[in-house]
Amino acid sequence: MDDRLIKQMDFILEVDKIKNITRQTYLSDGKRKENDAEHSWHLALMAVLLREHANEELDLVKVMTMVLIHDIVEIDAGDTYAYDDAGNTTKREREVRAANRIFGLLPEDQGDMCKELWEEFELAKTPEAKFAHTLDNFQPLMLNNAADGKSWREHEVKKSQVMKRNEHTGEGSRVIRSYMQQLIDKNVECGNLKNE
Amino acid sequence: MDDRLIKQMDFILEVDKIKNITRQTYLSDGKRKENDAEHSWHLALMAVLLREHANEELDLVKVMTMVLIHDIVEIDAGDTYAYDDAGNTTKREREVRAANRIFGLLPEDQGDMCKELWEEFELAKTPEAKFAHTLDNFQPLMLNNAADGKSWREHEVKKSQVMKRNEHTGEGSRVIRSYMQQLIDKNVECGNLKNE
Repeated sequence: MDDRLIKQMDFILEVDKIKNITRQTYLSDGKRKENDAEHSWHLALMAVLLREHANEELDLVKVMTMVLIHDIVEIDAGDTYAYDDAGNTTKREREVRAANRIFGLLPEDQGDMCKELWEEFELAKTPEAKFAHTLDNFQPLMLNNAADGKSWREHEVKKSQVMKRNEHTGEGSRVIRSYMQQLIDKNVECGNLKNE
Repeated sequence: MDDRLIKQMDFILEVDKIKNITRQTYLSDGKRKENDAEHSWHLALMAVLLREHANEELDLVKVMTMVLIHDIVEIDAGDTYAYDDAGNTTKREREVRAANRIFGLLPEDQGDMCKELWEEFELAKTPEAKFAHTLDNFQPLMLNNAADGKSWREHEVKKSQVMKRNEHTGEGSRVIRSYMQQLIDKNVECGNLKNE
């Protein structure tokens, strides 16, 4: 059989593991935590439906592919919680190693495409990467709000931390960032986010 | 706030429920069954990486969007196992009602777009719909093979049932259908699929 097809199939099977990478965010019903595959599915669909709210024109296939692969490195590197300062200092090194191994399973051209797209996401400079970050920051906030702030309360997250994490979120979409602020304010008011 | 944005957000939150729709297929490690969001994530990524094996030229955004939404109707209609003959007789009616309710949450243009895309998938006539079906049939077969036929053995699935289910799979991609046949033959040989 075709060596190219074998490599593609090896990768496609390997990334099945992303379904076991658990995030800190609960599903909207608050019953269990979300995993990376579910999160990425949600972002890709949001990219289609919310693209009209992006600040800039964008290539939709690029955004969709970017969000579908943006967490694949966590198969090796694990999920680093947004508000875990210690974990975030070693995150980059762990994730680069993971990107090289996992995307390296693909035929070279596709592996390079994925690595470049992941790096583009990480740098957050292009319209597509900025919008992908907007979605990546908005989606857990939406779920946290729906689950009555369960994950925020467990981690005693402060409003200032959420504000800091979202200081660039408006670069992808001012409309979505403004919608998020309403959710943030509501959750500060009812005590799900600590106001300090 | 913008009525359009509210409708989009209502839909995006509603479809979070797809993460609780469990399929009959086990993940590749055999430890638990897959849900519809995870399955749809996998298909969308496969669409990007395997499109070169499609029989016909296709619109990638269309295929990706189609596979991202193809199982959303199961939020109301439930998952109907491929080899459940009784369930499959009432499937269409349940799913049409679900499509009207769930896609009806969106602004009208986007709701219509989703309903049309879902119908196009169901009819399996266009290059995009045929390829989406190829992926939708291949992905659980790949997982079943990786999990040593666990779901097939539990349901005592016969080779003839798998062959019948896949009689149109080659219309989307002859290359992928041919790869699948190797997996089918291997699983018949080792007894995971009943040879009758």
